[in-house]
Amino acid sequence: MVSTKFLKKLKDEYSIEFNNEKLLEEAFTHSSYSNEHPNDGIRDYEKLEFLGDAVLELAVSDYLYRHYPKLNEGELTRLRSNIVRTEGFSEFAIECGFQNEIHLGNGEEKAGARKRKTLLEDVFEAFNGALFLDQGMPAVQHFLHLTVYPLIDKGEFDDSRDYKTDLQELLQQNGPVNIEYSVISESQLPPHFVVELKINDQVQTQGEGHNKKAAEQQAAKAALQKLE
Amino acid sequence: MVSTKFLKKLKDEYSIEFNNEKLLEEAFTHSSYSNEHPNDGIRDYEKLEFLGDAVLELAVSDYLYRHYPKLNEGELTRLRSNIVRTEGFSEFAIECGFQNEIHLGNGEEKAGARKRKTLLEDVFEAFNGALFLDQGMPAVQHFLHLTVYPLIDKGEFDDSRDYKTDLQELLQQNGPVNIEYSVISESQLPPHFVVELKINDQVQTQGEGHNKKAAEQQAAKAALQKLE
Repeated sequence: MVSTKFLKKLKDEYSIEFNNEKLLEEAFTHSSYSNEHPNDGIRDYEKLEFLGDAVLELAVSDYLYRHYPKLNEGELTRLRSNIVRTEGFSEFAIECGFQNEIHLGNGEEKAGARKRKTLLEDVFEAFNGALFLDQGMPAVQHFLHLTVYPLIDKGEFDDSRDYKTDLQELLQQNGPVNIEYSVISESQLPPHFVVELKINDQVQTQGEGHNKKAAEQQAAKAALQKLE
Repeated sequence: MVSTKFLKKLKDEYSIEFNNEKLLEEAFTHSSYSNEHPNDGIRDYEKLEFLGDAVLELAVSDYLYRHYPKLNEGELTRLRSNIVRTEGFSEFAIECGFQNEIHLGNGEEKAGARKRKTLLEDVFEAFNGALFLDQGMPAVQHFLHLTVYPLIDKGEFDDSRDYKTDLQELLQQNGPVNIEYSVISESQLPPHFVVELKINDQVQTQGEGHNKKAAEQQAAKAALQKLE
């Protein structure tokens, strides 16, 4: 039931071909669908999500351990927690084309579940669980190298420095200043935001990111670099 | 600095020989020791603990997923949480002979840190992190097959039924009954407890387990089986 177009995307963009496509179906099957179609014999994704959660936790931990040798345990734990707290996973699910492949029951479809962030996050975890079962950890690591890891390296999960607050404090030392962030470009596939920063109505910098918050941080960071 | 006796135990009992013994040293080095011996060039175990935490989470998740196909996602998550909440890991650390190998600073040694449960749990996680780096997931799975998994299969982490409470409720339906559990045998290497259950001063059953609570549950379970 997974679309041919999606299978082609998986193969072309991520070099992924499932040996057992039933696992892939399962990763995209919401309980509302399996409840409505008991004779299809397809389980919902919940057990794959259970497994995928741990798969992502280890994959990310391993990546951080090897690629960020200068971070101490506290910094590693904080960064890992920012990455795997799953909020961001919904954006990856959209980027990877998972959204259109989810099997939903009629009620949930009408209720807009397909756009629900928590459901998209669950499906991203379930997909990684399915990939782990089908092809093991190296395949998961390869997939994450094409999706999640580049954003780690761009600093999008690093909240150790809050550039917006730092900029505000620096600028307002000598009295009130008008700081304004506005989204000037936004796309969903893949999610990409461009934010413009104005200080006292003068355009200063732009920032790009996977979501609005990350783009604002990048714009503030660029402004700080100009000022410092 | 790891003892020859311990290296032999690792090899004989768990078929483990580290390629990089520095990782093993690191897994047993507490920060109080590395702070006191900065010239030894041995890091403390905290980063290995960060990694080991995720290694154990996935290893246990994978085991549960494959060996308990009848459990649903909620039951799997609850069981996993009981296993990896790490309290039990201190007992495995003792059983595996880790306790005597830990490098502690003088102050922590005098303060009794070697017997501290949280420290033993940390070391168990760090050891699994080191083993994962040295030899990959299959070696970790092999080690857990000889330590943690048998206790999962014996039901020691399954709190879905509280046998002690069930027994009490059954017995006290017709008025007060005196139920008494007492430890009649206890050893630390490996941790093993035998508990005797008396009902109105009559010995009914015994239970064995990795800790007192588990042994009591087994005794209550046996009594329920006699009564039911």
